[in-house]
Amino acid sequence: MSDYRIIEVKQSVFADNNADAAKLRNELKEEGTFLINLMSSPGAGKTTTLKRTIAELAGSVKIGVMEADIDGEVDAAAIEQAGAKAIQIHTGGMCHLDADMTRQGIREFGTKDLDLVILENVGNLVCPAEFDTGAMRNVMILSVPEGDDKPLKYPLMFKNCQLALINKCDVLAAFDDFDCEKVEQRIHFRNPDCKVIFISAKTGEGFDEWTDTLKDWIAEFKSGSMKPPVHHDI
Amino acid sequence: MSDYRIIEVKQSVFADNNADAAKLRNELKEEGTFLINLMSSPGAGKTTTLKRTIAELAGSVKIGVMEADIDGEVDAAAIEQAGAKAIQIHTGGMCHLDADMTRQGIREFGTKDLDLVILENVGNLVCPAEFDTGAMRNVMILSVPEGDDKPLKYPLMFKNCQLALINKCDVLAAFDDFDCEKVEQRIHFRNPDCKVIFISAKTGEGFDEWTDTLKDWIAEFKSGSMKPPVHHDI
Repeated sequence: MSDYRIIEVKQSVFADNNADAAKLRNELKEEGTFLINLMSSPGAGKTTTLKRTIAELAGSVKIGVMEADIDGEVDAAAIEQAGAKAIQIHTGGMCHLDADMTRQGIREFGTKDLDLVILENVGNLVCPAEFDTGAMRNVMILSVPEGDDKPLKYPLMFKNCQLALINKCDVLAAFDDFDCEKVEQRIHFRNPDCKVIFISAKTGEGFDEWTDTLKDWIAEFKSGSMKPPVHHDI
Repeated sequence: MSDYRIIEVKQSVFADNNADAAKLRNELKEEGTFLINLMSSPGAGKTTTLKRTIAELAGSVKIGVMEADIDGEVDAAAIEQAGAKAIQIHTGGMCHLDADMTRQGIREFGTKDLDLVILENVGNLVCPAEFDTGAMRNVMILSVPEGDDKPLKYPLMFKNCQLALINKCDVLAAFDDFDCEKVEQRIHFRNPDCKVIFISAKTGEGFDEWTDTLKDWIAEFKSGSMKPPVHHDI
């Protein structure tokens, strides 16, 4: 029925994940693979956002998605149905991916014909932020129902991302204590360079800005001028 | 302004957390401290649920709350305002609490005059489920906006909880793909013994059942007949 594969990755043997991530980033640069690491809490809408992104960029950007989960294969099936190349990565209970686990996934996946590879990290606002995966851009999704205080409570996630998508804006009326200005201020308090885009993966609100950002990034990567992200350990 | 304290706990030196958790559980049983470990994703509504619980049980149950966070002290302040004894635990970047970190918090907190101590764990569906804190009951909150597929993707969390509160039921209409029957089936697929209660910490829906459960547990604990929970490592 479906032709995506499931890869069981193993925890890295490398003691220095930062050095390994820099190495992987160089390898990916040389072979022209543009990798984005997508992080969020469970249920913030990573898969739904990706499905709409794939649909909106169909015909112009060839996307591959690596779905990392502790267990299950719900997401890879959904992504494949949306029309992108997909692979399911099982982390064997691990709460995050490190650079070598990412490398194992990338090597099995095969990314030669893709413009953009998105790693959907394990749903978790804590641990994935600590481990540089080797991606060129880190993106996080914060959904409106989670509350506008999250940048205060999960600082590293916001420090290590170049872009925060504020998702589920279609339900802002039902969550009237969520303050859009405040959440942006709090994100910029943690990281002044983090771009913030308000979206709804359900209605498509804000998707033009998000997909334009993706296209700009792809062009920048292809031109060779893209600078690697700074990774903060704390 | 506020008299709650902030405790910086350190990662355990014990190799065997399960053994240490059993030891802590015995210590707490002997001194009559009933400890509940409360877990959820970031933003599922742990603090809001606790605030309403404290208000509804005011005068009948003396509650203390240990707020574990990587950083910040928003939650302890909110809990104290709600009228319970509160302490803030900083985990120093750690994504969960183990039994010894819990013990450090309990010892600093002072729990002699309390009927119920609730440990609000770090917002995370993955790691906290792996570490037995020594609590007598494990409770998790899944909020409607997170989606009904979470028991499929975060199995250990549901396996290790005796009760799942499905929160934010007031917004079920806005999240019409959330299937209440399905989520209950999926939770019971992971753990047939996990009780499920549908609540809204905003409107108070379902709180009678939840506070009755708490009162029953407190009585059972005080009678000495409460059995310790089974902890699954995988």
